[in-house]
Amino acid sequence: MRMYDLIEKKKNGYPLSPEEIRYMVDGYVQERIPDYQMAAMLMAVCWRGMTDEELAALTDRMAHSGEMVDLSGIPGVKADKHSTGGVGDKTTLIACPAAAACGVKIAKMSGKGLGHTGGTVDKLESIPGYRTNVDREEFFDIVKKCGISVIGQSGNLAPADKKMYALRDVTATVESIPLIAASIMSKKLAAGSDCILLDVKTGSGAFMKTAKEAVTLARKMVSIGSHAGRKTAALITDMDVPLGNCIGNSLEVWEAAMTLQGRGPEDLTVLCTELAARMVQMAGEEPLSICQERVRQAFADGSAFETLLDMVEAHGGDRRVLEDPDKMEKAPYTMEVKAPAAGRILHMDTHQCGMAACMLGAGRERKEDKIDYSAGIVLKRKTGCKIEKGETLAILHTSRKELLEGAAQRFLEAVTIGEGEIERKPLILAEVDGKTVKWYDSGSDK
Amino acid sequence: MRMYDLIEKKKNGYPLSPEEIRYMVDGYVQERIPDYQMAAMLMAVCWRGMTDEELAALTDRMAHSGEMVDLSGIPGVKADKHSTGGVGDKTTLIACPAAAACGVKIAKMSGKGLGHTGGTVDKLESIPGYRTNVDREEFFDIVKKCGISVIGQSGNLAPADKKMYALRDVTATVESIPLIAASIMSKKLAAGSDCILLDVKTGSGAFMKTAKEAVTLARKMVSIGSHAGRKTAALITDMDVPLGNCIGNSLEVWEAAMTLQGRGPEDLTVLCTELAARMVQMAGEEPLSICQERVRQAFADGSAFETLLDMVEAHGGDRRVLEDPDKMEKAPYTMEVKAPAAGRILHMDTHQCGMAACMLGAGRERKEDKIDYSAGIVLKRKTGCKIEKGETLAILHTSRKELLEGAAQRFLEAVTIGEGEIERKPLILAEVDGKTVKWYDSGSDK
Repeated sequence: MRMYDLIEKKKNGYPLSPEEIRYMVDGYVQERIPDYQMAAMLMAVCWRGMTDEELAALTDRMAHSGEMVDLSGIPGVKADKHSTGGVGDKTTLIACPAAAACGVKIAKMSGKGLGHTGGTVDKLESIPGYRTNVDREEFFDIVKKCGISVIGQSGNLAPADKKMYALRDVTATVESIPLIAASIMSKKLAAGSDCILLDVKTGSGAFMKTAKEAVTLARKMVSIGSHAGRKTAALITDMDVPLGNCIGNSLEVWEAAMTLQGRGPEDLTVLCTELAARMVQMAGEEPLSICQERVRQAFADGSAFETLLDMVEAHGGDRRVLEDPDKMEKAPYTMEVKAPAAGRILHMDTHQCGMAACMLGAGRERKEDKIDYSAGIVLKRKTGCKIEKGETLAILHTSRKELLEGAAQRFLEAVTIGEGEIERKPLILAEVDGKTVKWYDSGSDK
Repeated sequence: MRMYDLIEKKKNGYPLSPEEIRYMVDGYVQERIPDYQMAAMLMAVCWRGMTDEELAALTDRMAHSGEMVDLSGIPGVKADKHSTGGVGDKTTLIACPAAAACGVKIAKMSGKGLGHTGGTVDKLESIPGYRTNVDREEFFDIVKKCGISVIGQSGNLAPADKKMYALRDVTATVESIPLIAASIMSKKLAAGSDCILLDVKTGSGAFMKTAKEAVTLARKMVSIGSHAGRKTAALITDMDVPLGNCIGNSLEVWEAAMTLQGRGPEDLTVLCTELAARMVQMAGEEPLSICQERVRQAFADGSAFETLLDMVEAHGGDRRVLEDPDKMEKAPYTMEVKAPAAGRILHMDTHQCGMAACMLGAGRERKEDKIDYSAGIVLKRKTGCKIEKGETLAILHTSRKELLEGAAQRFLEAVTIGEGEIERKPLILAEVDGKTVKWYDSGSDK
């Protein structure tokens, strides 16, 4: 077999066989296939796409390039959840403890944030004492004891994806739905859970700008999961406005704690209930309506919040900062951003809102950047709100006063104020289960 | 400027500006841009193509990456001719001396053959004593004296093309009409002639399998030449059957000498007359019919043949092997290939005929292979001929007896014998001049 022939085959629009894909992935990881050949192949994949069978073989091989985590030592059904990334997305901190409180086992590995989207690991590390790098034995013990553990991603999880992603990153081949699907799913398969729930974001704050693209990505990922024998489903959810009111690590942890106590914003509460209910449904045999009710109960009786507190404590984190917001580290500098005009907020460019939070120190632009955990934005008004001139739209938080002005300007640029009605989008736009896509329109508000 | 952004732009289907193309070519030659980024770009070009403006800028920059030969020291109009390669294509040895005999100056650099198509330099080197690597001063002197000199290609001609071609060759990006056009034309522009006549071959023995593809390539090359201020035109000619009756270096030189003396096969004589007439027309102001007449005259009065003999002598070659075929080195082993059945030759897979000649030692499969100049095939019957069972179809020539059987088998596999009429194709299928394409149908036999 020669890589040249595989490139030519893909270039001419023919699918690669599982053996050919195996040859390609293994050869690349073992450095028998040079970067320039893989770069040509990746661009050919951007061009010609991949069939579901090709993607299943590719992802399986990428997953098997490193450690395949064996969760069989943990009793019960293990479920994982993945979000494609957005602004203010702290759903893992809420939906996962809620699902765990309903009996689902969650042994989850999360990534760090890069660019305008936050990473769960960064949020957890903003809790004083929380260790995200526990070893395999302790990880399993915490899941057994608390029902949930969320840790950082192991270095040897899908190394083929790591190597391929680094190449895609310098050859403009990141934006390819099949390659994105394989990248995400290779890590999910390697991480070992029985059930995988995908939250595919769409809108101005997401990588997938349209719901149609998001559904295409979701279908590809669900197909990969199913091929690999994992129960897999996806929700397509709105990221055309930040999720909840807080953007930034400590702020989001605080908002997650509020939400688990029934005092969070409506959009975040509804979405986390739906996500947790689907995880419960996938892990068990009950109808969705029963699962939704069980999750609501776990919020109401405090068991969901208690599960988060237990997990934080088991990881060495200080549970008091979640129980008592006054104990949380506050940013020394804040600034109110005022509405420059009266009217209605017609749109928030959510990517730009995320970039404004980044500018305050809440995110990384490069891998080596250090995060200011207390930095971020608390939104007071969101898309659809009527506002008066001079009314506070948001409060900026940072440890470096000199960053406030620039971030305020960036934030204001992201907000469109005007007159007129706006189309109300549903929070959940569609759902992919097996080969079925169910679309929700604006009427059926979830 | 960043190569990443240029790859992304091309990937998304937008044209690159001349400045961007300059940055890319210069950066690649100077090794600031790595192979993997160029590989992704080349595949993106295969996908999205290039506009005429992009191609003009790309080719100009590739040409200027090395020496731009200055032919102004040679009085008169300089014309070049390029064939995209075929089997039995010895037109340079015939059409160029004929054009030179009519007053066109020809200072031509030719390449070596690779694969199933022969190279003019190899054919010339089969003439005992012929030096293809003369220096610039001697080259110019020979053109001034004989009106023509054909030498090997200088190492510093379009080094960007050399580097890009080597990468295309290992990334399955050779087959791309814009990249083929830029590769050929960068060397033609650097070689310095005022007029460029392109002979684009199509059919089973050519790289362009259909006339439509060949016309597309021809239009791109003519556009590049015109953008660069060179008078450029192209003929699309048939390569669905070997050209003439001889395949192999010494055999083709012998057939060229015969043809210049009016004793060559009809197809070769007609094509060379047409090619030479177009070169004369491009270099002067006369109508085509006058030029055709002048070329026929140069064949008839012996001046075309005399021009070839003078050039060979000026290069140190032995003119006697052209004047007296008995003086030419003969292969020690020959074998007649007999028709296995009666009928009509319906098709000759010309690529396979070329490969059979290669197997006898007439060509190279790798750059470092040595050529057996006397090896090759003399065709006795071609497509369209009625044949009897056992009739001789061809005679194989080689210095290594053990190669005969395999080559005979390969040759027979290339020949389809059956019943029925065959569609007679014109030798010249189309002509591209400026933006005009003129198609010739089977009726208007040329």
